[in-house]
Amino acid sequence: MTHEFIQALQRELAPDVFFGEDIPVRFHNDWGGLSPVIPLALVRPRTTEQVSVTLRLCNEFKVPVVPQGGLTGLAGGARPIENGVALSLDRMNGIEEVDTVMATMTVLAGTPLSVIQAKAEEVGLFFGLDLGARDSCVIGGNLATNAGGNRVIRFGMAREHVLGLEVVVPDGTIVRSLNKMLKNNAGYDLKQLFIGSEGTLGVITRAVLRLQAKPAELASAFCGCPDFPSLLELLKSARQGMGSALTSFEVMWPSFYDFMTGKLPDLRRAFKEPHGIYVLIETGGRNAEENRALLEQVLSDALEAGWVSDAVLPSSERETKDLWAVRESVSEYGKLMGPLTAFDVGLPTSAAGRVVDEIEAAMKVRWPDAIALSYGHIGDSNLHLVCNIPSAGNDQPHKEITELVFGSIAREGGTISAEHGIGLLKKPYLKLSRTPEELALMARIKLALDPNNILNTGKVLSV
Amino acid sequence: MTHEFIQALQRELAPDVFFGEDIPVRFHNDWGGLSPVIPLALVRPRTTEQVSVTLRLCNEFKVPVVPQGGLTGLAGGARPIENGVALSLDRMNGIEEVDTVMATMTVLAGTPLSVIQAKAEEVGLFFGLDLGARDSCVIGGNLATNAGGNRVIRFGMAREHVLGLEVVVPDGTIVRSLNKMLKNNAGYDLKQLFIGSEGTLGVITRAVLRLQAKPAELASAFCGCPDFPSLLELLKSARQGMGSALTSFEVMWPSFYDFMTGKLPDLRRAFKEPHGIYVLIETGGRNAEENRALLEQVLSDALEAGWVSDAVLPSSERETKDLWAVRESVSEYGKLMGPLTAFDVGLPTSAAGRVVDEIEAAMKVRWPDAIALSYGHIGDSNLHLVCNIPSAGNDQPHKEITELVFGSIAREGGTISAEHGIGLLKKPYLKLSRTPEELALMARIKLALDPNNILNTGKVLSV
Repeated sequence: MTHEFIQALQRELAPDVFFGEDIPVRFHNDWGGLSPVIPLALVRPRTTEQVSVTLRLCNEFKVPVVPQGGLTGLAGGARPIENGVALSLDRMNGIEEVDTVMATMTVLAGTPLSVIQAKAEEVGLFFGLDLGARDSCVIGGNLATNAGGNRVIRFGMAREHVLGLEVVVPDGTIVRSLNKMLKNNAGYDLKQLFIGSEGTLGVITRAVLRLQAKPAELASAFCGCPDFPSLLELLKSARQGMGSALTSFEVMWPSFYDFMTGKLPDLRRAFKEPHGIYVLIETGGRNAEENRALLEQVLSDALEAGWVSDAVLPSSERETKDLWAVRESVSEYGKLMGPLTAFDVGLPTSAAGRVVDEIEAAMKVRWPDAIALSYGHIGDSNLHLVCNIPSAGNDQPHKEITELVFGSIAREGGTISAEHGIGLLKKPYLKLSRTPEELALMARIKLALDPNNILNTGKVLSV
Repeated sequence: MTHEFIQALQRELAPDVFFGEDIPVRFHNDWGGLSPVIPLALVRPRTTEQVSVTLRLCNEFKVPVVPQGGLTGLAGGARPIENGVALSLDRMNGIEEVDTVMATMTVLAGTPLSVIQAKAEEVGLFFGLDLGARDSCVIGGNLATNAGGNRVIRFGMAREHVLGLEVVVPDGTIVRSLNKMLKNNAGYDLKQLFIGSEGTLGVITRAVLRLQAKPAELASAFCGCPDFPSLLELLKSARQGMGSALTSFEVMWPSFYDFMTGKLPDLRRAFKEPHGIYVLIETGGRNAEENRALLEQVLSDALEAGWVSDAVLPSSERETKDLWAVRESVSEYGKLMGPLTAFDVGLPTSAAGRVVDEIEAAMKVRWPDAIALSYGHIGDSNLHLVCNIPSAGNDQPHKEITELVFGSIAREGGTISAEHGIGLLKKPYLKLSRTPEELALMARIKLALDPNNILNTGKVLSV
């Protein structure tokens, strides 16, 4: 059977199918940190029709198939399956159309995010999605995982940047819904099914993206607040005072801020005195004066009300970069901390202060030398938490830490995955964030679209 | 069998179930203009559990059930089915929670839109959805039909205002996904299935809505442009110059503008000279000066470039109202025109000028006395078109007009329904906007969720 399947792949897809040692190592894994897997075959299609052929064959022979984009996912969702096919979209790379009247761009799924961003800027527009992996990740993966990133508070998740999709469903049918219109209520909005389903329902091959007017200059301010309740008042006031000009509200707890500024000599602390909690506010007004005026108004009100103890309004690009450098130092974790257990959770914003205190304290009780650093896009209810137990060396108690953290999150009605998705790594915990009725409905949808359960089999949910 | 079913309804739902003459006339129809239908029974539940009981019984006895909200839909989607049950959400009316930190509001499905808008303003926030029927329509219906309306260009369709839903699926299962977080990628985003599916997949009983910062004052300008290509340049320039401050771009063709200002003596024409096409631009900056500055900048550039021939910047609320009065005179159609064939179509913005010319001309060729008025939210690619053939009296050639208009739209890759949905009225034409593969996928989803096809049976699509 396997032999027959391999022959069929060869016959219908050569020279774009690879086996064994011909499969480059980079297709063996994503950034999820699980052990690499060599798939039975790798297909690197150049056309949607080849994607269709691949799925049709896999469906006929009931062979699992794992769609792959830029392989930058953190949940193991694009890791191949042994005896399965890896289906990389990397060769379906290109911008097919830019429509400046509609403010849309039609792209192939394998196009890197940064290429899309650059093209939008080139025509005087702007693509609202941005994340650290922008040069490596591709739009198909961004959409399949409903990526979040740095600008969600202002521009929304990946879902909100899509107008149309072309998708291949498991039996090989090509479903073209390359809608370009902002309003289209003619029947079910099928694209919504595929966005965020992590490649378990269909393979995205093309997308019509929604572009935005180019935002004017950005400006930032850095604040020290006495405590979390004050920070919440500042958030409300910033949202009210800045409206859609508020582009970032990035919170750093002392656990994170003190650790990073202590370990990395290049990072400058903004204040002499320590504060209860820190936040970077970014605003995108129409010009530099407006930005400054907006920030000054919000900050002077907040200082007067006591919600902010001290604030810095940088006066040069250099100073702005210095402030952001602390928040962006997260790429240094590996060097500073050794093996990590890292979280991307969401929870009602008002509970975030209490939950962080609770988790950081519980970690110290359980592992007295625990390092637990907290920070996040709190304006989007998104909390990141990074843990290491130095005394545990390479044998980190990942499972125990995860159960401790997810337990707190679940009690508050939070989500175990705000932006990274479920993939393989978080699958055992999905039931903490979703009810049995929700899980049953997901399984029903999965089986309706993929009755042979071939597409990214075993990722997100079991059916 | 029917007798048994009626007994079961009585037993499990009295006193909230009604039969025959006890069913008030207003539940016999929506605003779609089809003939009224008296259903077998009307259920007016007070709780989600009663909705669940209703669906369970209908599913068991295989009786069609039609969910009803404010009954303001224009596509016949909420018209009852003979021998079916009408399920009105009108008694599930109320705001359950406002969370000013998260900027969310949790409401029951039968809550009127205007009540939600008012509550949001009361707490210093803003609900971004608005449409003419705001006092009569309810949020459950707005979400089930993915309503559009006046602020889509700035705030998006109904879908973009929802964070969580509670839904009852056809077998009676209650699926609670009352998420409040902006970011939540833990499994499939189930709510997306129900939003815009016009009550064919589940009954929405509760929603968590996303509120916005209150926009500052609005300001408007009215422009006469030489032709449609100039208008497009103005749109691009307004989008670029105003960014997210652009809240409306409402276009009126001379067919509409001349007819309405000619027929309604209270409407003032803004200019002495006629122009090729007219547009109302609205901006929502942070204050009156900023609004004026934004508009002045865009208009002076456009006048210089020749995209605008003449413009009015009203200097009082009274003058602003006068300008909008023309656009809002659409409620007078009934009196002015007699029986109508009305359209809510979408098409690539750049094609809208050509398509309107083509349709208006073809109407005149076919019916020399035809009145065809064109206007629309062109910033959202949404065109409205209203037709009457005076010589046809009460016997309007609806079908022929529809085929003529939808034919043009389909050729341009447009949509036969931008915001009103498909319901019953547009169902025969859905295939003009969607491919066979898309229709097959919709049917597959419908049957997966509603295997007995009881929920709003025969609306949107046949399975």
